[in-house]
Amino acid sequence: MTNTNPARGMRDFLPSDVRKRDFVIGVIKDVYEKYGFEPLETPSIENLDTLTNKYGDEGNQLMFKILKRGEKLQQELAEGKIRDENQLSDLALRYDLTVPLARVVANYRNDLPRFFKRYQIQPVWRADRPAKGRYREFYQCDVDSIGSTSLVIEAEQIGAVCEVLERLGFDDFEVRINHRQVLTGLLEVAGIDEDKYSDALVAIDKLDKIGVDGVIRELEGRGISASGVSPILEFAEDDADTDLTLSVLESLVSESETGSEGARDLKDLVDLFENGSGTRIKVDPTLARGLSYYTGAIFEVRVPDLAGSLGGGGRYDGLIGMFGKEDVPACGFSLGLERILVVMEEREMFPSDLPSSSADVMVTIWNDESVLESLKLAGELRSAGHRVLVYPQADKLGKQFKYADQIGVPLVCVLGDSEVEEGTVSVKNMKTGEQTPVERSRIVDAVKGIS
Amino acid sequence: MTNTNPARGMRDFLPSDVRKRDFVIGVIKDVYEKYGFEPLETPSIENLDTLTNKYGDEGNQLMFKILKRGEKLQQELAEGKIRDENQLSDLALRYDLTVPLARVVANYRNDLPRFFKRYQIQPVWRADRPAKGRYREFYQCDVDSIGSTSLVIEAEQIGAVCEVLERLGFDDFEVRINHRQVLTGLLEVAGIDEDKYSDALVAIDKLDKIGVDGVIRELEGRGISASGVSPILEFAEDDADTDLTLSVLESLVSESETGSEGARDLKDLVDLFENGSGTRIKVDPTLARGLSYYTGAIFEVRVPDLAGSLGGGGRYDGLIGMFGKEDVPACGFSLGLERILVVMEEREMFPSDLPSSSADVMVTIWNDESVLESLKLAGELRSAGHRVLVYPQADKLGKQFKYADQIGVPLVCVLGDSEVEEGTVSVKNMKTGEQTPVERSRIVDAVKGIS
Repeated sequence: MTNTNPARGMRDFLPSDVRKRDFVIGVIKDVYEKYGFEPLETPSIENLDTLTNKYGDEGNQLMFKILKRGEKLQQELAEGKIRDENQLSDLALRYDLTVPLARVVANYRNDLPRFFKRYQIQPVWRADRPAKGRYREFYQCDVDSIGSTSLVIEAEQIGAVCEVLERLGFDDFEVRINHRQVLTGLLEVAGIDEDKYSDALVAIDKLDKIGVDGVIRELEGRGISASGVSPILEFAEDDADTDLTLSVLESLVSESETGSEGARDLKDLVDLFENGSGTRIKVDPTLARGLSYYTGAIFEVRVPDLAGSLGGGGRYDGLIGMFGKEDVPACGFSLGLERILVVMEEREMFPSDLPSSSADVMVTIWNDESVLESLKLAGELRSAGHRVLVYPQADKLGKQFKYADQIGVPLVCVLGDSEVEEGTVSVKNMKTGEQTPVERSRIVDAVKGIS
Repeated sequence: MTNTNPARGMRDFLPSDVRKRDFVIGVIKDVYEKYGFEPLETPSIENLDTLTNKYGDEGNQLMFKILKRGEKLQQELAEGKIRDENQLSDLALRYDLTVPLARVVANYRNDLPRFFKRYQIQPVWRADRPAKGRYREFYQCDVDSIGSTSLVIEAEQIGAVCEVLERLGFDDFEVRINHRQVLTGLLEVAGIDEDKYSDALVAIDKLDKIGVDGVIRELEGRGISASGVSPILEFAEDDADTDLTLSVLESLVSESETGSEGARDLKDLVDLFENGSGTRIKVDPTLARGLSYYTGAIFEVRVPDLAGSLGGGGRYDGLIGMFGKEDVPACGFSLGLERILVVMEEREMFPSDLPSSSADVMVTIWNDESVLESLKLAGELRSAGHRVLVYPQADKLGKQFKYADQIGVPLVCVLGDSEVEEGTVSVKNMKTGEQTPVERSRIVDAVKGIS
């Protein structure tokens, strides 16, 4: 017999799962729109050329590629003419939402406004080894702003993400921010070779997990002298307040032009959060973020009880232009839907009024002759705005009540022989068990009153 | 330079496209929920085994298959060990939403209610030749009811689909219905060989397009005697009313037990639409629908200005059980999102208040020093529920107005030096061009009043 589980790393979402996902997506969408981001959707499938070599070696390996179609392929295979994977595929599933955005910006330049702020909430696919919380199909909830280098962009994106998390009920998240130019400045001043920057950043980014000694060991293991970097590591571990951190960073990179520029930028950004949301912001001098394409401010949202981040992003002024002729400044923030859901599930953060069923009322079916009466009643209740389930067939009333109870419908309208005769409907409250006769002509108002 | 178009048969949806799609999906979802259907989502990728041989030869060929991953594949290729397509793929993109539903029903039997009514609005993928209105990624909007053979199921699904289309503004659609058992009865009585039934149905289904003579020619071309079928073809072309059609069908199949059962079922179904929605229903004795798995009532929604249908469905009591041990009765209706959108676009049916921008208000940026003031104003407006765009950078006011106009924001709040000094905000109505100074402390209410 066929295996009926979803494919490896894939998930089915039963109704209660979908409701939770839709609730979170709804809040994210609503807040993103409140910040003036506009919706964009791109196809799941992209030309392989569009995606290849945009995510490094790992990305190339983790991409789901689509087999070419047609008789020619089968013939060439049979003849032994195909000796390389590259001959087999011309399409792939998107790996993220950023490269497709870059393609869209290049392709519709004339249809898009000068500053394009878009949000995109869609699945992406990665053939990663499945693990707890890591799936092969998962949703990214991205905002990106194209066309301006102004820090207003960063401030607004961070503001939007904070509002999303607050509206979902998170009260202990932190937005860590740092700046790629400051990191470059630190490495420059520490006298590290430019071709080792990326290795050094990977090591520094791990401070949280492996501590100062761990980072130093890793740096040395990669042939990088740690002496110039250890002051910032030790300082970072002290978890100083934002003002002190900014001034220490400023002085540490004062010999580097790039670094000083970055430190000024970082300070200006922090100043845009003077009050309120400012309490969420924390400058983290060792935050580096994996992707190599960042060029300015970088950010990451964390909560204490999750090892990874809920999301992150930053400025990447080089990437969006890759499909066009000129560079286009850009900055983006991506929230991971699955990560948010995992924490909300563990903390039981979903609102208690999230519906457990799609129906407010169930209408019973007494016998084959009364089906039309029941359908008419359902129609009237629907016209009045209620979500109404009709029990599908004539059955014992007890069975019908049991079913209503099982799927969580709060009210049942019973329309039996005696009710039809008397011109009434019995309304049963499934919570209290109470059953009240209501005049047929008053039923719509009565249900409105109870539900 | 890389090609920046979407891949063949795929589409990008810019903001105005997404808003139209979301509007239609929102109505469909809302109505489906009003009828008590619950949301289900399944993964885009299924095990190839799950999908193979479920859609006939054509389906097998049009499926997007996913290339196996890893070094083993590359090595086997290089060694010339792979001579057949089947060695290359273990996964595929879903081809419809019905087979995944069947898998889900088998897999979660104990978690699902006895009668499971689900809706599912998700994309499916077919490597079909792209044509006008035919894409390789497109959305299906399905309702299916599992677990009951009662005609209440059919009646409720047809009711839901009618309400969707009415709410979208369609006033000229028709739900054609027929019954597989009636068709079988007709073929039985006409003395056609059972192994020719499926060929015969394909021909009969074309009556609309090729007329009686065309169908007869096609039947004869397939070696099927047309004499027994021509009476029903000629009758069908007359477009008689429902009562007459039902009684003619009843008498034509009276010699067939299967046919008579179907005719009774069809009549009982029509009786459930006595009034109101009944005017949408039309019994079409030559409606056959392509898929071989239907077992009872079949339906199709049509509008005069579209060659194909907006959607269709029917009862298929054998399919859902295919992954389990026993048969499970089921009936489903699928609306094609793209078809609906094409007609709505051509007829300009979208509501005029569909937003053209994600923002109600834009806040200007006067200079680098006033950024914080502008962000604060935006924050207050957002707290009051407005959707607010902040112009991303300090710029000439004229440029900022031009941008607001271009993206369709109706109101602009200007916060310049003089305004900050005077404690005011100038509110510009982009439609009238009128600009009104408003006290800073009253701005939130003022915007609420205007927008």
